Amino acid sequence: MLDETHDPQLRSWVESANEPLADFPIQNLPFCRFRRPGEERTRAGVAIGDQVLDIGEDWGIASVAAVMAMPAAARTDLRRRLSRHLANYTPGADRFLYPVREIELLLPCEIGNYTDFYASLHHATNVGALFRTGNPLAPNYKWIPIAYHGRASSVVVSGTPVRRPWGQVAEDRAGPPVFTPSRKLDYEVELGAFLGPGNRLGEPIRADQAFDHIAGVVLLNDWSARDIQVWEYQPLGPFLSKSFATSISPWIVTTGALEPFRCVPEPRPTGDPQPLPYLCAGSRDAFDIVLELWLRSPHMQGPVMLSRGRFRSMYWTLTQMLAHHTSNGCPICPGDLIGSGTVSGPEKSNRGCLLELTARGAEPVALPSGEKREFLEDGDEVTLRGWCEAPGFRRIGLGECRGVIEPAIAYLS
Amino acid sequence: MLDETHDPQLRSWVESANEPLADFPIQNLPFCRFRRPGEERTRAGVAIGDQVLDIGEDWGIASVAAVMAMPAAARTDLRRRLSRHLANYTPGADRFLYPVREIELLLPCEIGNYTDFYASLHHATNVGALFRTGNPLAPNYKWIPIAYHGRASSVVVSGTPVRRPWGQVAEDRAGPPVFTPSRKLDYEVELGAFLGPGNRLGEPIRADQAFDHIAGVVLLNDWSARDIQVWEYQPLGPFLSKSFATSISPWIVTTGALEPFRCVPEPRPTGDPQPLPYLCAGSRDAFDIVLELWLRSPHMQGPVMLSRGRFRSMYWTLTQMLAHHTSNGCPICPGDLIGSGTVSGPEKSNRGCLLELTARGAEPVALPSGEKREFLEDGDEVTLRGWCEAPGFRRIGLGECRGVIEPAIAYLS
Repeated sequence: MLDETHDPQLRSWVESANEPLADFPIQNLPFCRFRRPGEERTRAGVAIGDQVLDIGEDWGIASVAAVMAMPAAARTDLRRRLSRHLANYTPGADRFLYPVREIELLLPCEIGNYTDFYASLHHATNVGALFRTGNPLAPNYKWIPIAYHGRASSVVVSGTPVRRPWGQVAEDRAGPPVFTPSRKLDYEVELGAFLGPGNRLGEPIRADQAFDHIAGVVLLNDWSARDIQVWEYQPLGPFLSKSFATSISPWIVTTGALEPFRCVPEPRPTGDPQPLPYLCAGSRDAFDIVLELWLRSPHMQGPVMLSRGRFRSMYWTLTQMLAHHTSNGCPICPGDLIGSGTVSGPEKSNRGCLLELTARGAEPVALPSGEKREFLEDGDEVTLRGWCEAPGFRRIGLGECRGVIEPAIAYLS
Repeated sequence: MLDETHDPQLRSWVESANEPLADFPIQNLPFCRFRRPGEERTRAGVAIGDQVLDIGEDWGIASVAAVMAMPAAARTDLRRRLSRHLANYTPGADRFLYPVREIELLLPCEIGNYTDFYASLHHATNVGALFRTGNPLAPNYKWIPIAYHGRASSVVVSGTPVRRPWGQVAEDRAGPPVFTPSRKLDYEVELGAFLGPGNRLGEPIRADQAFDHIAGVVLLNDWSARDIQVWEYQPLGPFLSKSFATSISPWIVTTGALEPFRCVPEPRPTGDPQPLPYLCAGSRDAFDIVLELWLRSPHMQGPVMLSRGRFRSMYWTLTQMLAHHTSNGCPICPGDLIGSGTVSGPEKSNRGCLLELTARGAEPVALPSGEKREFLEDGDEVTLRGWCEAPGFRRIGLGECRGVIEPAIAYLS
């Protein structure tokens, strides 16, 4: 629901938050987890401009996980109180502010379980066409928000270097394989969602209640080793081709902050089936979020944008994903993370991974440095950015999610 | 390594541990986690006969997770000290003993990440033949210990009722599907392994070091909804067909206790490829463990054994699974759990799930009550049992892993 926290005229006494293109104006207030130099303990914070407010000391909030565990109404109330606090200066209020550049940002929440969806019809169609002639989509795609259980232990925060993984590779899918550093390393532009408070085993979250269990979103890069993936994935799905690293941005942008950018999903293509009743939620359960992918090779001064997509173009919404996920009684815990799957759109400029953008390496991307890319090379820096704009509202940003490819280890040393 | 803790003559002052068929003689000493009536806090324990020794109070061990985090040498040392303590009575030593029947057994360790393998060639061949005419095995099977990321939040301890899940079902795999309680509910007889201390991101555990990161084993029932599975699993693998419940036994039987039952794996069939070098560990990295499946319908006085298999017959060993799992740098954390996949053998009596045993329902199992089973029905009680025997050593048991099927919820109520 829109309230005074979304007023575009609202300003903070933290001056950097009032700059027109700031990612974190007072209308945003994303949660983060951080450490001060020399300290062991982690702290829960809220970003405002180029500062982070420690909400552990002053607000008695033990952790970001505790925020995820709150009912939606309590999170809305917390947002209102934080907004008032940062709008109206009270003496001493700046005691709990730390400049972002002086702290260490951690994963924004400890992640219990991680699930990755496959919710873009454009992505699924493009990828399917590269590997399956004839019908690129499996018959279940338009009925099920397809997903697989991901690996929580390899989710890392933006800035963590990503080592090129070793793995079994047999490009013709018949074997025999070789064990080698991956030669087809890729990114995937996704949106992640932190969940809570969640449900108990055996008690599904109904679609009309699912929105209340989505606490907020992050940028997510589902790094993928395509050559490992194509050899390993039958019959049980992706495994080591994904679990070497998954990067997320350090800021959980709440559904409260995203309220002005809620919208109806794009209509399904003519002739597509309607979702089954257990997947029918309210009409405004999509979010209009722009997601960009930037690449910088070691030979480039600055990064170049390779794609821009809109989260609104997904075939399945976050609430449908969550309703499906729990429809069998599977429990969601506070701090669980779901990824949306690669966000691609109808145009080539919307394609959210190199596999699609280069047609599996057949059409390399030309970089301003004169280099070409079929897949990622060592030293490449990959950055996701995201933001929301709508008439009559303040622009908010999701920050960035960044990773640099490091060479594979010398395996037997 | 064999030591004095494996001496078959060794007796405990806890008399129930000395009975010939006791699962938990002093040669076993499995870890568990429990709660005393009326208490909130959980305690770490070691089973001895029909008692549990609280090792938090007397031994200063904060949790079973802390034991998993110990290097292998420290765990061996702890085993020796526990063995001496329970062999030689000291006044007051029984102060920290609680009868099993008076405590609440919990999951033996908090589970960070759960991975399920598919390591029985017999199972993979049988299942493949039911769904794929021609070549039942994918070309990767004899090269890769196939696995998928599982769901940690739905792992439950033995005794927890299992609700029949709802899900999308389209038996002909072409759609359209219906949303319905599963009609093809199955068990899978597996061995689980608790891992630790583990590795850091980007630093694989080599096959010759992997054994030291396997702390112990449990019985594991990977409940499966076959009708949901066959419709959802393309292209990303099983998801909701598995994540409604996975049951494990409450006792982590350590690799220390299993030492007398270590053995060389069964030889690979003639003509099969040798494992790639990164999957080559020592020669004695299999375990000879018997696994039994017992079923009791509400109309039966007692349970009937449906199958008996040997863990030794697996195509891939636990050390190979772990070396593969970390070969891409994926981090293993103390308390992570891996499942072996269904343990089946060459004979029909070795088949570890109803899908195999009934040939997908075509050959129902006859029960002593006159009933038949294609798949599980409401009220059925499924119990896994496991034990090890070898000449010159004391028999040890893995306890049991039990679950009763409850009817599906009325979804929209």
